[in-house]
Amino acid sequence: MSGNSFGNIFKITTFGESHGEAVGVVVDGVTPGVEIDEHYIQAQMDRRKPGQSSVTTPRKEYDIIQILSGVFEGKTTGTPLFIMLHNKDMRPEAYDDIKYAFRPGHADFTYLKKYGIRDHRGSGRASGRETAGRVAAGAVARKLLEHRGVSVVAYTKEIGGIKCDAFIEREIEQNAVRACDPAAARKMIEKIHHLASVGDSCGGIVECRIRGVNPGIGEPAFDKLDAELAKAMLSIGAVKGIEFGAGFSAAEMLGSEHNDQMDSSGFLSNHSGGIIGGISTGNEIIFRVAVKPTSSISLPQKTMNVHGEEQLIVTEGRHDPCICPRIVPVVEAMACLVVEDQYKRQAALIHA
Amino acid sequence: MSGNSFGNIFKITTFGESHGEAVGVVVDGVTPGVEIDEHYIQAQMDRRKPGQSSVTTPRKEYDIIQILSGVFEGKTTGTPLFIMLHNKDMRPEAYDDIKYAFRPGHADFTYLKKYGIRDHRGSGRASGRETAGRVAAGAVARKLLEHRGVSVVAYTKEIGGIKCDAFIEREIEQNAVRACDPAAARKMIEKIHHLASVGDSCGGIVECRIRGVNPGIGEPAFDKLDAELAKAMLSIGAVKGIEFGAGFSAAEMLGSEHNDQMDSSGFLSNHSGGIIGGISTGNEIIFRVAVKPTSSISLPQKTMNVHGEEQLIVTEGRHDPCICPRIVPVVEAMACLVVEDQYKRQAALIHA
Amino acid sequence: MSGNSFGNIFKITTFGESHGEAVGVVVDGVTPGVEIDEHYIQAQMDRRKPGQSSVTTPRKEYDIIQILSGVFEGKTTGTPLFIMLHNKDMRPEAYDDIKYAFRPGHADFTYLKKYGIRDHRGSGRASGRETAGRVAAGAVARKLLEHRGVSVVAYTKEIGGIKCDAFIEREIEQNAVRACDPAAARKMIEKIHHLASVGDSCGGIVECRIRGVNPGIGEPAFDKLDAELAKAMLSIGAVKGIEFGAGFSAAEMLGSEHNDQMDSSGFLSNHSGGIIGGISTGNEIIFRVAVKPTSSISLPQKTMNVHGEEQLIVTEGRHDPCICPRIVPVVEAMACLVVEDQYKRQAALIHA
Amino acid sequence: MSGNSFGNIFKITTFGESHGEAVGVVVDGVTPGVEIDEHYIQAQMDRRKPGQSSVTTPRKEYDIIQILSGVFEGKTTGTPLFIMLHNKDMRPEAYDDIKYAFRPGHADFTYLKKYGIRDHRGSGRASGRETAGRVAAGAVARKLLEHRGVSVVAYTKEIGGIKCDAFIEREIEQNAVRACDPAAARKMIEKIHHLASVGDSCGGIVECRIRGVNPGIGEPAFDKLDAELAKAMLSIGAVKGIEFGAGFSAAEMLGSEHNDQMDSSGFLSNHSGGIIGGISTGNEIIFRVAVKPTSSISLPQKTMNVHGEEQLIVTEGRHDPCICPRIVPVVEAMACLVVEDQYKRQAALIHA
Repeated sequence: MSGNSFGNIFKITTFGESHGEAVGVVVDGVTPGVEIDEHYIQAQMDRRKPGQSSVTTPRKEYDIIQILSGVFEGKTTGTPLFIMLHNKDMRPEAYDDIKYAFRPGHADFTYLKKYGIRDHRGSGRASGRETAGRVAAGAVARKLLEHRGVSVVAYTKEIGGIKCDAFIEREIEQNAVRACDPAAARKMIEKIHHLASVGDSCGGIVECRIRGVNPGIGEPAFDKLDAELAKAMLSIGAVKGIEFGAGFSAAEMLGSEHNDQMDSSGFLSNHSGGIIGGISTGNEIIFRVAVKPTSSISLPQKTMNVHGEEQLIVTEGRHDPCICPRIVPVVEAMACLVVEDQYKRQAALIHA
Repeated sequence: MSGNSFGNIFKITTFGESHGEAVGVVVDGVTPGVEIDEHYIQAQMDRRKPGQSSVTTPRKEYDIIQILSGVFEGKTTGTPLFIMLHNKDMRPEAYDDIKYAFRPGHADFTYLKKYGIRDHRGSGRASGRETAGRVAAGAVARKLLEHRGVSVVAYTKEIGGIKCDAFIEREIEQNAVRACDPAAARKMIEKIHHLASVGDSCGGIVECRIRGVNPGIGEPAFDKLDAELAKAMLSIGAVKGIEFGAGFSAAEMLGSEHNDQMDSSGFLSNHSGGIIGGISTGNEIIFRVAVKPTSSISLPQKTMNVHGEEQLIVTEGRHDPCICPRIVPVVEAMACLVVEDQYKRQAALIHA
Repeated sequence: MSGNSFGNIFKITTFGESHGEAVGVVVDGVTPGVEIDEHYIQAQMDRRKPGQSSVTTPRKEYDIIQILSGVFEGKTTGTPLFIMLHNKDMRPEAYDDIKYAFRPGHADFTYLKKYGIRDHRGSGRASGRETAGRVAAGAVARKLLEHRGVSVVAYTKEIGGIKCDAFIEREIEQNAVRACDPAAARKMIEKIHHLASVGDSCGGIVECRIRGVNPGIGEPAFDKLDAELAKAMLSIGAVKGIEFGAGFSAAEMLGSEHNDQMDSSGFLSNHSGGIIGGISTGNEIIFRVAVKPTSSISLPQKTMNVHGEEQLIVTEGRHDPCICPRIVPVVEAMACLVVEDQYKRQAALIHA
Repeated sequence: MSGNSFGNIFKITTFGESHGEAVGVVVDGVTPGVEIDEHYIQAQMDRRKPGQSSVTTPRKEYDIIQILSGVFEGKTTGTPLFIMLHNKDMRPEAYDDIKYAFRPGHADFTYLKKYGIRDHRGSGRASGRETAGRVAAGAVARKLLEHRGVSVVAYTKEIGGIKCDAFIEREIEQNAVRACDPAAARKMIEKIHHLASVGDSCGGIVECRIRGVNPGIGEPAFDKLDAELAKAMLSIGAVKGIEFGAGFSAAEMLGSEHNDQMDSSGFLSNHSGGIIGGISTGNEIIFRVAVKPTSSISLPQKTMNVHGEEQLIVTEGRHDPCICPRIVPVVEAMACLVVEDQYKRQAALIHA
């Protein structure tokens, strides 16, 4: 059934397959009267697009967005924004040889089992291409959050076992992997170049910080701020886990260590990651997501085809050896969508 | 706004505070004609209740459930099940000394900031007591899943740094911590007894396995099976993270390692944790959640009160030094709710 | 699937069968910090209950409500209100003779076809008893609307062909049929007594006026204020139609007559019924609902039973010959629910 | 907030303003594997478009639809269908003189009050143009309903006081007003020509019949089949009322008349309009909607402008003197959307 919408009050609906004619998004529930233009959104799209650097796929997506409704004379009208991108540089024929085979790590098998039919061209709806609409919508949310004094930044924390030691925020957009530590970034890039040369791929960890959120945002018992962020992040194709604040390391901590004590100036630590009881504390919200290695590799792998026959498969094509750098803007976009939606829910709750 | 419902087609709504008069749940969207009785549900409630063993709080909850609607002559009618538990053994006066202070790790501060008012008696709505309704509803989902051939089992994988080496399923319900390794269980119990004696607490990791799910269950692009499970788990108070299959360790794997290759008999590994592209593969679904140390400890901690004054606080009362054993049935319940809901969504999608 | 919730942000979920153990409602999304008590809600319940006068069923419902959560020290906390009524005076055995027969006008046949099972005791979930929870929740909404300066009043406009000529608001609660014209009320009561004596029933029209709603309330394109009110009203068992402002008579009007022209003081007429483009104009919102004759009559009627056999049926029991007087508070309650929900949606839209 | 989606499982989201760049719809929850093409949808669009005959506006909308996602090799894939129409023949400058004035009967005033900003070009989002997306989506639903054996037909029953006496279904699409009685149609056309010549407009009544729906479709207690149809119809701009079966005339009927008695062959009458207790009976579902006179007339009317000044206004432009003929396909489309959605909900409820 209908799982292609996200959000409650600030709500997006995406559509489009990677090698269909277009992808896009309808953004509903947008505050009216806010100045926004295509350049603001385009800037975020450009961070997501392939072909940005030597570590991403050389595939081109001419992601020039169009806002086709919901903005009048430069301002939002409160009616749905519709943002579309035509697909170009499509080479559906490049996928002819995988028409019948299930590529390991891809959703080929599960889509066929679910729908009984599969658009085999470049993963169809399961492609990372679907996230283009999310990033466009996330830019709209980001603009609204700017007015609330909220900012969102994500970055690569780890790639292929190489961890960032330092956190230097201004360096993030200065290196091709969007790592927060330039020394680590250099090693990550080297590793990615090596993997590209041998036809393999690797995973990593992306961290996200949300600043400026008032205490009191989040909707218990089920739509807690962390619960909604977790859903948002796990809805991104390559993400296999999420942790907030101390996260999994909390499993080895004592209560006397993990509890964030307070004095009159506020919290003395932030092991909770800025969320307690599903509601923002006013501290920085911090979480990390686990990103799996890109499924498309050019090493031969065992698989089955739709006829139940075994075969070896080599995924040709133009793919990212590590998706972390390009997932960063998607993580930010989804975080923006969640936080703006939760702010609107809080307004609904308390405004008489 | 209204964040107290969970699910789309099979949908629950919970209500109740820990020291109010009752807690309970309305379960909507229940398949009609299914035999269910209070004993079946009660059995799950008994696994969640406090006072089960030496490692849980001695506090008593007389969780004798009542089904007050939706069942007629022993069968579900398709109308909402209403299941209620009266609160007893309430000692609201025990909370008088925390009326003004914010207990570290608790949602006292965030609830006050959100709502501008707080029911200070035993955490109010933020109490673990809220999960009673979830477990009752989860039992209904579990019964429906039995008819689909689906089973769900969770267990303690790690407590306070002590990890299970073995996985012996029949041992899980035989030890007080619900660990899957009896040797580790003994050490865990010892550790908990020690922490109780010194007034501290610890965290752990709970793992869950869902078996018998057909390939094809899950609703991209946003309501993916893993996304919904992540939301469900993070909506549980003490949970701070989740990972599927290889999870965070995927960050250090190569694509050639992580990809689940296939032969004609099916998948050759399960690093994906039984979900690819947000849809079940037919393999066992496996995930782990990070459980933070219980916030209530009797060691003195620094905090602030509602007047902005600093103070030391000692959380008296009857609390679990580690909540893992009692979170196990809650994790199972939430997993049951998600999977049954997703099965119903698949039925809606494909049945002409 | 789950059709037992109503509303988006201010959301209610009802449960309960007429001859089960209890009926009730969970009210989610309630503004915190609002004073409310059981007496305020009970006053509305008393207007709905049977046995109020000679024109209603002598059946007793001891609708003493209990608020079991969501209120602390006399104020709402922002967590779900749970309001319950135990069923008493149940005589399920009175329904034994209709166990297999489908009563004309009742939902016996359709429930069996839908669910494959039927709680035959007094219409089960399809009973007017289900509206008790709606009225309780509506009282909560009414309290919130009082703070917004909004009031809602409904009344009988027509019964069995007898129409009100005058509109004298203070008379409404002074006569047994809740008519807005005391002269008409006397004739209506006479007619109802006559129908009761011959074992028949009749229908009528109930009108509702909502005052004090700011211009700007309503959510196009689909959740328009009139669209949501229409859904709300048609969800009441006996209602078969609704019209706003000029309503069906607009079919015979010219545009030059129907258009509400303006001068600098505002609208010069209100043929639109206070809603244009699905959004409130600031004028009084006015609509009428068509109420069908009570289905339960004691005249013999032809029907079929579950075995496909023809039979005559006489509906014994204690029923209202005309349900209009008791539907009035239900219409008001549903109107309150819609308007409060829409106000909250507007707050979510515009508050930065 | 987000009111631009309709449906639960089969769900549509529309966007677009009348004089923006495009209008369209995302259709989510579509059964996979169903053959559908643009011609099938285009045929419905052509019934809605302006300029079809002498009784509709001569304005041209080149409603050539494009399906840009969700269909692969002629079949639905289960992913969202995206259907778009570019706006052409736009003359936004034609609306310059109403930039500041509130046109009587139009949503100019209410949109400005709600959003604080207004796209004044041709009613913006409040334009009938918005229904283009509904008709496109309705065609998809109609195709799915064909497989279920369900058909939907609407037609003009009354225009400007002229009523159809006969019901001759094959005549409906043979006359310019889509009336079910050719004799009445001729008088209606004459009346419309007259009104066009004097610059006025008129209202009417459209009736809809849904056939082939199994007994058991509809979701009590709130999402009843009639409740959802009522919401759907009242969400159409010009509709001011709805009645099912006997409808408002039930107010003057006795229970012994209105009750649909049964014999072993089924119901002996259909005063209920095919829905009892919110669930389909298996009989033809029949309802009527009240359509207000077109708001745009060229007679001078009193109004106010945004500066609070009084003025006379004459609505120039190309408008339909009566919208009934063109509302017929919109009514059908919305009915199709509701019924398909409810069928899917029933599948979710009962399929194990």
